[in-house]
Amino acid sequence: MRAEIPAWVGELDEKDPVKDFRARFTLPPNVIYLDGNSLGAMPKATAPRLDEVIRREWGDGLIRSWNDHDWVSASRRVGDKIAALIGAREGEVVVADSTSVNLFKLLMAVVTARPGRKIILSEAGNFPTDLYVAQGVAALVPDLSLHAVAEKDLLEAITEDVAVLLLTHVHYKTGHKHDMARLTRRAHERGALTIWDLSHSVGAVEIDLGAADADLAIGCGYKYLNGGPGAPAFLYVAGRLQKELHSPIAGWFGHAEPFAFAGEYQPAPDINRFLSGTPPVLGLMALEVGVDLLAEAPRNLLFQKSRELCARFMEWTEPCREFGVELVTSRDSATRGSHVSLRHSDGYAIVQALIADGIIGDFRAPDIMRFGFAPLYLSFAEVWQAAEALRDVLATRKWDDPRFHKRARVT
Amino acid sequence: MRAEIPAWVGELDEKDPVKDFRARFTLPPNVIYLDGNSLGAMPKATAPRLDEVIRREWGDGLIRSWNDHDWVSASRRVGDKIAALIGAREGEVVVADSTSVNLFKLLMAVVTARPGRKIILSEAGNFPTDLYVAQGVAALVPDLSLHAVAEKDLLEAITEDVAVLLLTHVHYKTGHKHDMARLTRRAHERGALTIWDLSHSVGAVEIDLGAADADLAIGCGYKYLNGGPGAPAFLYVAGRLQKELHSPIAGWFGHAEPFAFAGEYQPAPDINRFLSGTPPVLGLMALEVGVDLLAEAPRNLLFQKSRELCARFMEWTEPCREFGVELVTSRDSATRGSHVSLRHSDGYAIVQALIADGIIGDFRAPDIMRFGFAPLYLSFAEVWQAAEALRDVLATRKWDDPRFHKRARVT
Repeated sequence: MRAEIPAWVGELDEKDPVKDFRARFTLPPNVIYLDGNSLGAMPKATAPRLDEVIRREWGDGLIRSWNDHDWVSASRRVGDKIAALIGAREGEVVVADSTSVNLFKLLMAVVTARPGRKIILSEAGNFPTDLYVAQGVAALVPDLSLHAVAEKDLLEAITEDVAVLLLTHVHYKTGHKHDMARLTRRAHERGALTIWDLSHSVGAVEIDLGAADADLAIGCGYKYLNGGPGAPAFLYVAGRLQKELHSPIAGWFGHAEPFAFAGEYQPAPDINRFLSGTPPVLGLMALEVGVDLLAEAPRNLLFQKSRELCARFMEWTEPCREFGVELVTSRDSATRGSHVSLRHSDGYAIVQALIADGIIGDFRAPDIMRFGFAPLYLSFAEVWQAAEALRDVLATRKWDDPRFHKRARVT
Repeated sequence: MRAEIPAWVGELDEKDPVKDFRARFTLPPNVIYLDGNSLGAMPKATAPRLDEVIRREWGDGLIRSWNDHDWVSASRRVGDKIAALIGAREGEVVVADSTSVNLFKLLMAVVTARPGRKIILSEAGNFPTDLYVAQGVAALVPDLSLHAVAEKDLLEAITEDVAVLLLTHVHYKTGHKHDMARLTRRAHERGALTIWDLSHSVGAVEIDLGAADADLAIGCGYKYLNGGPGAPAFLYVAGRLQKELHSPIAGWFGHAEPFAFAGEYQPAPDINRFLSGTPPVLGLMALEVGVDLLAEAPRNLLFQKSRELCARFMEWTEPCREFGVELVTSRDSATRGSHVSLRHSDGYAIVQALIADGIIGDFRAPDIMRFGFAPLYLSFAEVWQAAEALRDVLATRKWDDPRFHKRARVT
């Protein structure tokens, strides 16, 4: 049972200038989906496009489709489309591998290009895979170490010993957004490079890598880009750095002439040198559908809606405070992404109780309830109903039910 | 115009004990597909399965499908199915990343575990990405070098300085198949480990990693496994080595508890430690369809058919010798895979002329025409017609036409 939507909330939706994009997605009935920051929803165009790729391009075209359907350029083509979304230039972004593998490639490229600098600097509590990959790189390179410091200590920690500052633009747990331009400036003053993980910001908040003079970035295809489960990831290397940096994984798609089948590796002169193996065609084509859809939307209006959805959710969940819920995410839209995190010691069970009612958020240990607001397909009415439902779960202690305490494998 | 099929060739098909599998694939009309060694054909079950994954599992299930449809175990589940095809045990194979990335992970794992040994030994003319990746690893690790020697010199070159012997089981160009057990035995006698690239053998010829006491292997999902363009690859690590070896790419899916979101990397105690990022769900599920289909087939009969298709093609192309065509692949089925390579100085144009007639093989520089024989979906009649067509192209010099000399981007 969902709360009835007041007229004034309905009006927010009527006035929403990007409301028509919702019809481009398939969302299950009776679900309010506040987890697009973890896995984006399915564009209606994806299934028919993949059917075409499978039956026509693969089934009928077979090997010929590498040329005839230009599979061979797809990593660059989709990369260029993503570039346009994040303030990068053509030829600075390529789709490849997973976020973890891309981070590994860029980190290794930087630390081997800056052998005199012995620190990878990151934030304590950064997304685990970022810290794990950095730990792995530090273990491979003599004398290199990872320093993960608190957010407030970051600026000071950028010293002349730092090879690279690795930060997630929007924090997966708290929703905090870093000041990319300021931190990049400081890094450059100290002679360090920056790697920005855009996984929790791309497609949800304004990103301008060019204006920030960002060096390197990686990002995820399956969150706000709606590329599908396990979609391939992307990486960005500023044009000015492409000649200097080398991928540690010298696969054939990174070769200057992959189909010459030469015996010696010769890296491509451009961003292609950061490709490694054969591109994942099915995943790439599904990702392209999501990216194309986002590219259609007026992004200033879209990001404005993100900010409003978050602000409304914060406002509408104010009454939850009396049940021990604490707001984690910043009230200042300049310093947050597009998800809102609330803290409660029984957060896991509360999130499960909401999910049982079709309101899907997620939980991050030890006590964070995350609610993501994907502006392309969410309505104000849904956000209002979700806030009401949360209050109801808390007020009735619905989460006391033991079935909501049973831990799933993936949370 | 295809040559008419003699009755005795038709009888070969009638007697073929695995002929019914052809009906499980969609092949385009008027095409004879001899490039399944490069990109396998499309199983009929793939498109409906992907539609289900996209619409039902992703679209309706959304984030819940990581648990409800067990996406989280798919890398292992499909890995175990592949293990059964290659003489590996449960828990020794996992699907992940691309072949290039998997090779990088295994090579780095070995050379960091065997720091006293300074040579990666491989075969000159091995598949380029294998040599490139090895060159990249050698560039990263002080004093490590890649030695690529001629096939005949391999046994002698396995010295006490060799950390790892990296070979492609069936050579992509010549079709030559190495004696896996013998080379592995010699490597072990010298204290070296082995990495077998199974890309051109898995699904087409008998492989028994267990019987050969093989250490490590990688392989491709989009050739004889029919997993679709850019399908994810797999890797094998013998159970006895899993505790000792560490992936250089310490991504979250390789963590002992990925969803604990702990700050410190703790590798999984099993093969999962060789996973890195989020698995490519769409590609994985498409690969599973191909693997399931192969698992249904009686493999001894399938591999027997492979050998016969190759032998017949060699026999039926004998008359091509008078036009300057030379047989590259071994006549001895014990030392070849499931493709046959012919050499001709105008091989590129000859292959294009055949493709224009719907007979799809491929070309590998500088002069190799490759014809692959996927036993699941090819008939003896097709192989006979292909041999006739090749003779016709040669006899009429159809390949003189300038349009067949124009180089495509992907060959």
